[in-house]
Amino acid sequence: MEQTYKNAGVDIRAGEETVKKIKGFAKSTFNENVLSDLGLFGGFFELKKDNYSEPVLVSSVDGVGTKLKVAIAMELHSTIGQDLVNHCVNDIAVCGAKPLFFLDYLAFGKLNPETASSIVEGFSIACKQNGCALIGGETAEMPGVYQKDDYDLSGTIVGVVEKKEVIDGKKIAKGDVLIGFQSNGLHTNGYSLARKVLENFSFEQKFDELELSLGNELLRVHKSYLNLISHLKKDVEIHGLSHITGGGIIGNTKRIIPEGLSLKINWDAWKVPNLFKLIQKTGNISDEEMREVFNIGIGLIAVVSKSEIDKVIETAKTLGETAILLGEVI
Amino acid sequence: MEQTYKNAGVDIRAGEETVKKIKGFAKSTFNENVLSDLGLFGGFFELKKDNYSEPVLVSSVDGVGTKLKVAIAMELHSTIGQDLVNHCVNDIAVCGAKPLFFLDYLAFGKLNPETASSIVEGFSIACKQNGCALIGGETAEMPGVYQKDDYDLSGTIVGVVEKKEVIDGKKIAKGDVLIGFQSNGLHTNGYSLARKVLENFSFEQKFDELELSLGNELLRVHKSYLNLISHLKKDVEIHGLSHITGGGIIGNTKRIIPEGLSLKINWDAWKVPNLFKLIQKTGNISDEEMREVFNIGIGLIAVVSKSEIDKVIETAKTLGETAILLGEVI
Repeated sequence: MEQTYKNAGVDIRAGEETVKKIKGFAKSTFNENVLSDLGLFGGFFELKKDNYSEPVLVSSVDGVGTKLKVAIAMELHSTIGQDLVNHCVNDIAVCGAKPLFFLDYLAFGKLNPETASSIVEGFSIACKQNGCALIGGETAEMPGVYQKDDYDLSGTIVGVVEKKEVIDGKKIAKGDVLIGFQSNGLHTNGYSLARKVLENFSFEQKFDELELSLGNELLRVHKSYLNLISHLKKDVEIHGLSHITGGGIIGNTKRIIPEGLSLKINWDAWKVPNLFKLIQKTGNISDEEMREVFNIGIGLIAVVSKSEIDKVIETAKTLGETAILLGEVI
Repeated sequence: MEQTYKNAGVDIRAGEETVKKIKGFAKSTFNENVLSDLGLFGGFFELKKDNYSEPVLVSSVDGVGTKLKVAIAMELHSTIGQDLVNHCVNDIAVCGAKPLFFLDYLAFGKLNPETASSIVEGFSIACKQNGCALIGGETAEMPGVYQKDDYDLSGTIVGVVEKKEVIDGKKIAKGDVLIGFQSNGLHTNGYSLARKVLENFSFEQKFDELELSLGNELLRVHKSYLNLISHLKKDVEIHGLSHITGGGIIGNTKRIIPEGLSLKINWDAWKVPNLFKLIQKTGNISDEEMREVFNIGIGLIAVVSKSEIDKVIETAKTLGETAILLGEVI
């Protein structure tokens, strides 16, 4: 029998159709610094050097973990791309950087142009919200690696910060305080545990203590803290910022704490949101495990000296955010 | 029963062990522009602006397709990372850019620190060979998305080129010639078809017409053309460069050909390597399909005016490469 790429599971035409569908989404994110059209081998982004004195490029790569299994099960692919962009944006924003551009990798068992298009639309929405350009991507069809309707996605963001404005925790000192800001759900961490614990419920199920259906609660879009961080940088002397992802409050904040210092957290300083409580109760999960796996309600932590507390509270308030004093550096 | 992340299939300790193992590999690629240690939220790369007049960042993201199924089947994980880096490097080198830094994404069904470490060692080897720093990565454990021993990987590279030295095909004119340079195997494309066609052979099988066993032929590391391209840029006026990946010689070279122009290829200008012939014969694959799916022996194409041919041949020769005149722009 004559063999073709298509009967080996790779449909070049579906690939071309996908590229056509997603080009518009990517282009909608372009700004005057993007020099290339899509379809070339690389994406071109001009760094106007006169705008910087000592530019440092800050980059980060991430995925969304098994949150995508929830998206796939619910056939809702429009927000998972936003999750990924916001996750990446937060990771460089906590370093003090402003995002410049984003590139995505999408791999399917069987490439579905509609699904791919929904996901990429999500990338473009979040890219525009965060002022960054979607300048490249790779869409792969990989039969045998992914189940037919399964896919995975990863994204890389590149941003820029002035060397003297890098936030890396080096200024953190004993006595500094930790101020937390609320997450709006699981963000993109802990889904393998959450899904396991909740496997006997339907995603359509409603709970008295949750606003949306279980599935929609789980799919709430990972919040971008870029705007909040931009304001905090202007108003406050920030010693460190921590994005609470896998590893939880301690695991992530420890990444920026200088050697010899440690963290004291007041775990009662905020109300753990009901979704986390539901997961904990259903799975009979220990407090310790919950704190390591999930953000349990805190998505961002700023480390500042005590004298800055009021300014942080004030800035947060003007943005509709609540600043929660949740611990100190010891 | 008390649930934990670990019994949900995510082993945070295996993650930590992996990070420990791979830190050294990443660090071995660092240069004076890398300002961060691993473990922060982002990777920091200083762009010394005085070294550039109008810097354009060129980036590309890629995977290795189902070549990794061969690596997994053969339990040889040390070269797949090199494939990925070299693929990415070529994609920006054909735009005229020099690589600065690379970030990887690795996702496993069940995280195996040994395997992850082998893969990342591969990244670091190729990063050093291409003079770029491995400044970030994400390693994810995603039970239920990937089979236990399966994984996927993607990588993003960022490089830089002076605006006036960007190679984007705009100078290509009617009468220009296409000069091809040899690939050293399938590189990273067409593996789903190759695997399907060859599924009745063992990867250990030897063929008279192949130097190595079938599996080792399939795993030959995607060649980096960075050095060749750097020399060509110095010696020759290049109108366009094309990296031959999925889509083949025509599909990829068309990406840089200005509208209204077309390609005429002399398909007899070079000898198609035996591995491709074996695949074609075994699978009864049409010439047309072979040319669209595989590089069939040509990994890089330079488009130059006729007057530059001798210089290209000469430069290639000094590097031990053969320049093959394989077509023209019509």
